[in-house]
Order: sequence, then structure tokens, then C-alpha cells
Amino acid sequence: MEEKFNNVCSSPFDSSIKNKVTKLTSSNTALEIILNECLNFGIEEVDFINSLGRVLKENIVADRDFPPFNRVSMDGIGICFDSFNKGQRKFTIEGIQPAGSPQLTLKNSENCIEVMTGAVLPKNIDVVIPYEQVEVENSIATVQIEEVQQFKNIHKKGTDKQQGDLIIPENTLISSAEIGVLATVGKSKVKVIKQPKVMIISTGDELVDVAETPKDYQIRRSNVYTLVSLLERLKINAKTAHITDNKEALKSKIKGYLKEYDVLLFSGAVSKGKFDFIPEVLDELGVEKLFHKVAQRPGKPFWFGRNVPDVMSGRGVDNVVESNQSQNTAVFAFPGNPISTFVGCMKYFYPWYQKSLGLEEQQNFAILANDFTFKPSLTYFLQVKLENKNGQLIATPIAGKGSGDLANIVLTDGFLELPADRTEFKKGEVFTIMKYRIF
Amino acid sequence: MEEKFNNVCSSPFDSSIKNKVTKLTSSNTALEIILNECLNFGIEEVDFINSLGRVLKENIVADRDFPPFNRVSMDGIGICFDSFNKGQRKFTIEGIQPAGSPQLTLKNSENCIEVMTGAVLPKNIDVVIPYEQVEVENSIATVQIEEVQQFKNIHKKGTDKQQGDLIIPENTLISSAEIGVLATVGKSKVKVIKQPKVMIISTGDELVDVAETPKDYQIRRSNVYTLVSLLERLKINAKTAHITDNKEALKSKIKGYLKEYDVLLFSGAVSKGKFDFIPEVLDELGVEKLFHKVAQRPGKPFWFGRNVPDVMSGRGVDNVVESNQSQNTAVFAFPGNPISTFVGCMKYFYPWYQKSLGLEEQQNFAILANDFTFKPSLTYFLQVKLENKNGQLIATPIAGKGSGDLANIVLTDGFLELPADRTEFKKGEVFTIMKYRIF
Repeated sequence: MEEKFNNVCSSPFDSSIKNKVTKLTSSNTALEIILNECLNFGIEEVDFINSLGRVLKENIVADRDFPPFNRVSMDGIGICFDSFNKGQRKFTIEGIQPAGSPQLTLKNSENCIEVMTGAVLPKNIDVVIPYEQVEVENSIATVQIEEVQQFKNIHKKGTDKQQGDLIIPENTLISSAEIGVLATVGKSKVKVIKQPKVMIISTGDELVDVAETPKDYQIRRSNVYTLVSLLERLKINAKTAHITDNKEALKSKIKGYLKEYDVLLFSGAVSKGKFDFIPEVLDELGVEKLFHKVAQRPGKPFWFGRNVPDVMSGRGVDNVVESNQSQNTAVFAFPGNPISTFVGCMKYFYPWYQKSLGLEEQQNFAILANDFTFKPSLTYFLQVKLENKNGQLIATPIAGKGSGDLANIVLTDGFLELPADRTEFKKGEVFTIMKYRIF
Repeated sequence: MEEKFNNVCSSPFDSSIKNKVTKLTSSNTALEIILNECLNFGIEEVDFINSLGRVLKENIVADRDFPPFNRVSMDGIGICFDSFNKGQRKFTIEGIQPAGSPQLTLKNSENCIEVMTGAVLPKNIDVVIPYEQVEVENSIATVQIEEVQQFKNIHKKGTDKQQGDLIIPENTLISSAEIGVLATVGKSKVKVIKQPKVMIISTGDELVDVAETPKDYQIRRSNVYTLVSLLERLKINAKTAHITDNKEALKSKIKGYLKEYDVLLFSGAVSKGKFDFIPEVLDELGVEKLFHKVAQRPGKPFWFGRNVPDVMSGRGVDNVVESNQSQNTAVFAFPGNPISTFVGCMKYFYPWYQKSLGLEEQQNFAILANDFTFKPSLTYFLQVKLENKNGQLIATPIAGKGSGDLANIVLTDGFLELPADRTEFKKGEVFTIMKYRIF
């Protein structure tokens, strides 16, 4: 951690203002503190088809062998390997074994049974010859090839997995691959980690709602919706609220939210303004500040803290059903600039959420396409356009006009994290990337 | 396109079976044919907050300047640059300009106004000095620095965008970045491309539902659910159905679906089995086959065709509300093996859908981690584990046991596409990757 001055780091006069030193937390330290505050959201059972993107909280084992029977894997005829081996090439068709029918038995080892992909292999049959290698006429199949292998075109019982084998371990993030397995083993309901209850709160008297026409000095609320959509990617269905810049209103509303929610995400009112009441109100409500102001751009005034419920004072009592009860609440208070909020959510909330779910940290990297200079001793989240060139993720900086410039962000795909302890970043160097476009 | 034999390409006896030649379509040709069959799903208006992952069908322009007024970007005092320049350092505070309040006017150019981030800049003020560089005592602010720049800490009206400027062009895939912009410009409703109506149909008498206990010769339906989840990623809410291996049942059900749906996705019954009725039934229903069997593994028996509605015969008449009317239906009939269906959806349906939406083709590449050999002259979709190492996407092969091995797929992250015209694939070479895990 270094001592820095607010937003004047590039000014030649910085060093003269000794009386205004603000201690900033480094971005890495901030993340470390946050990751120590992970919560346990509990477990719930959901329909497996609704479990995509959720985290499994049970081991999934094979309920039977995979495949559960000697399974025919080509359409054709099933014969006895011995008969073929003795030189026999013509086989009278004794019957047909469709998929989904009980197992037939080959009665005469010199005959054959027509077998269909997915069918159980008839008894006394140990090789399947595909129709492509057979001529069929008058119920006699003539094999057209001179060599076969025993068990060819048979997917043998238990080859992939045996009954009781672990197929998907607990704590796996469920993708389409797992959905297919869950169906196969009959897990119509599946245990997953509950999603956190998240409230996203905007403040600022300059804000009007999206459908309204702002007055000259007003703007529309946008950050809460950016956050809602960033959380939708995680399958979190967040609530939103707006509170005016009134200390008492803030206090009473936030008090209620602390009882009900696992997470509060604020946007705005965390800086030095006369109406930036959030840090003060949270303090008065007993929310413990873990840091305020991070050595980064954008998003420096970020405030983070935890609320430990006071069970004696009635938390979890006066609102039992809605309450998260004995659970802490994590409070992320991002500055109100659009890009600050955006970066803050991806840099801090995402990893906190993923670690809370028990997922391994996902770190991705991209390669800087051009030299880039950033002088202040702040971690810089550079807006970049991403391209996969020959398997390399190339990040091209697209200069915006600061943390308020939302228009620029539609031109980019992610934020490249440039460390605070350097000023020159060279083409070809590799940095952490946070990508917000999926395809 | 080459002439190949079904599934026996690696056998030394292939060349002797001249009478069983099946013409396979190459994977690239298959994709080309499919991409010529793109459909127009129409346009609908949705709440902007529900538009994440959808494709915009209108240009989004700035409804006002960005920012819409000279916007204070730091909390502090606003002064007259001329006064500072003349040497004045002490400024009497004349008032306070909060965010969200009508614009004040500095009455005396030797005074100052306290200004808050997000506020409109008061008249007659042209520089903002942050609180960190000011001492305030008895309503007098003393500036602690010796140099300021005119317009410092002011985000000037229209700097980012001017009223009427294009911010998001039509045909953009909406991410969280666009959600924030839509909110800012007041687009509470937004025009997007409609999602296709998709029916996913399983066939096969061996299949029972997920919640059922299969008999010895039965298995559970899983492919339709894999497909549902692969389509959920695209925000498509697909329907599912199961039809038994009965030709008349298939015919009557599919006839109905062709009237209602833009897309039918089948899993199973497209190979050479006695009960593989799908190609035949589709033919009898007038669905035009564009190809059947692709030179790839897994997924070779893939069938693709189009249904052109016969308006005269009543399509769009007897079922006006539900019908997709004069629209073609694209029919993707994948083989019933789990991995075949999975690969088929990602390789063919995804790009078809994305091109239908007007999105640019997304091609991603990964770097092979080990040497790999695959002898048949088929495009091979190799299951790989992916890792981002220093900005390089590294693909490590995880050998499965063929197209039926669903258990293996939970160990991998994607399919690396190895071209058909080679047999040896070297460490470090770059191939197309289809990734099915997002994070």
C-alpha cells in the first residue's frame, strides 16, 4: 500500500500538499480483504433443467453402468464371432433387435439378428457388422468383409463408467455437459448452492428513471441496470432500489436491507461530496468498514464493509421469513460513475461471488496490442477490444474519456488490468483481462 | 468432397467394398449449405432490462449531449479561473450546488460555490478545485495549490457524444455495456430480433424420461435437455417433445411442428436402422433434404433440410396464431449419440442462428497442447480441456470413448476441430475451438 493523493497523482504539485494525504488501499489488498469475507448462501434443490450456471452441491454418481448394457453402436447384423471365424459368411436372419426392446437370444449360432444402434446386444452375439458391409437378400445376410474383430461395434456395459463411479464432483459449475449427465443418471432434482439475495441501490438526487425525461440538470439511472445485467450473467436475480440523498431516508431503508440481503451493492455517494452519506450512514448502522478508497482508476472511492447481524437486537426476529438471519451482509459501495461501477462489479463482486460458491478463481489473460502509458501509481483498468488471433487473446486499447464515458464502453469487450507499480506497458506483454462480452 | 465409407475408413478392407459407397458431405460444405438457409425471425419490442444477449434492431442515438450539461466531476469548490489567475487564493463560499439541483449562478466572481460530483456546473464558474486541495474555514475556502487549468474537473457538455450521434448501431449483441447506454438514453423499450421458435424432438423407443427408472434395455432421455441448455445460452426458450419410433406418429406430429416452428432439432433416428424413420418421414412431408451424412466424427449421420411452406395447402391458415406462416423451417436432424448431438448443435445450429440474427461469424482458436493422431479422413471434434496461459488458449486432449461417452465430456471445456485432410496434428498448431463453458 502506498500513500497517494486523490486524483492529482499526475500533477507536479502533489508532493506539496502534505496535509491532505489519503491512504489508499491497493487493488490487490482490497480484493484480498473482500475474498476473506465470503459467505455461505446455503443449499437448495432445483429442477435439473434449471441448474445451468449453478454450482452443484452433491456428488453425481453413476446410477448404473455406462452404458448400462452391451449396447449396439451401429445398425447392422449381430453374429457369433466363432461362426465367422470358422469361415461362415452367410447368416440367416433370425429376428430383429430394436432399441428399447427386451434382449433377444440368438438361438442358432449360425444365424444372425438384425440389431439397431442403441439396442441391447442379443444373447450369444459378440460382433456387429454394419449394414454397409453386408448384403441382405431373402432374409439371408452375406458379409462382404474378410476380417472382423470380436466385440466390434459393441459399446460394452460399464466401459465408460461403472455403477457407483463418481461422474460429477460436488462444486462443479453446471454447463450443458453436466445437464446431459444429470438427465442420464436420473437426477431430475439436483442440489445446488442458493443464489445470494442481492439488493442494488442507487443514490443521487440527479437521477430519474429510464422512462422519464430528465430536466436539464438531471440524468437517468443507468448503473443499477448495468449491475442487474452483470448479475444476470451469474444467474442472480437482483432487486433494485433508489434512495434520495437524504440521510434519514438512507438510514432507515438501508437498515431494512441489511436484515434481508446477503449483499448490498451501492452505486454513488461514497466520495467527498456534501451529500455522499453512504460511508457515514453505514458506519452509524454498525456496518464495519474494511476499506475506503482504492488505488485504482476508475473506481477509486470504492468502499467495502461487512455487517455482522446483532441477533440480540432482533435481526432475524422481526422479519424471520425475509431475513438472511445470522448471515453477514457484504456491502460493496461503488462510486457512481458508470465505468467505476462496471469495473468494481467485475473486479470485486464477481470473484467474491465465485469464491463464496466454492469455485476456483478464474483468471484470464490477454496480450497488449500496443504500447500504452499510464503515469499515476494506480491500478488502471484499460478498456480494450479483444480478438482471438491464432489462439492468442489480443487486447487493443480503445481510449475513453474517463470514468463517466459510457459511450466508449460499447466499443470494447473488456478491461485489461494494468498494475499500479509501473507506468509503461509494452506491446506483447500479458495482463489480467476481465471480459464482459461472452460470444 | 470425397467419397468415403461409413465408419470403416480406417479398415484395410474398405477399398474392396465398391458397391457400398456413400457420398459424405464435408463438414465445411455442410456448414456452407446451412448458412445459406438463414431465416428472418422478425422484430419485437422488449423491456430494455430483458434485452441482455439479444440483438438490437434499431440504431441507438444520443437523446441529448453526453454529458448533457457541463458536469462537475470532483467534489470541491467551483471558482472563476480569472480570479485565480490574478493571484486570488481565498474565496468566500456563496452557496452549494448539489447534484440534481437547478443550475446556480456565481454572483461575485471573487467568490466560490461548493460543487458536488454529478452536479451541473454553476454559471460563471470555469474550474473546479477538489476538496483535497482546499482548506475551508468560516465559509472561506483557501486554495492550497499554485496552478490550476481552466475547465479542470469539469466534464464538458457533449464531450463524449453530441445529441443525435450514433452510440450503438443496429445489429449489436447487447451486453451489460449496452444495457447501461440504453438506460442512459431513455430506451425503456427496445427493438430486438425475435427469437426463433424451436422444437427439440427426441425419438427412440429405448428412451424414458429423467424421473423414471429405466428397464434393463432402456436409457433416459438426455440429449433434448443438453440441447435445451445449449439454446438457453442463446436466450432461446425451446420446447421439447418425444415421439416413439412409429412412422405414422412421427409423420403426424412433425407435420404439425413444421407449421408452428422456425427450427426443428431432432436427436436420433437418422442412420441406417430399421426404425430410423426421420429422413423418410421428412421426405414424405415434403421437407427438402440438403444433405445427409457428413464426413465428421462424431455426428456423421447428420441430416439437414428445409421446409418451404405450401401456403395453398393451408399452412398458416388452419393455425394462424401459432404458425410461423410463410416462413421456412430449418430442420437439423442430429444422430442420437450424446456427443454427436452436442457437437452438431454447436458446429451447425449456433452459426446458423448467429448469422440469422445478422451477427458476424465468431471464430475462436486454440493451440493444441500435445501431438495427436486421427487417421480417418473425417473432420474430428476432439474433446479438450482449455486453459488460458499467458493470453494463449491452450487445448489439452482428453480422450473419450467415442460418441456415446457422455461421462468424458464433463472433464472437458470444448471441441477442437481437426480438419479431415490430415492425420497428424502437432503440439503448438492452431485449430478452431468451440467452447461450451463460459467462465
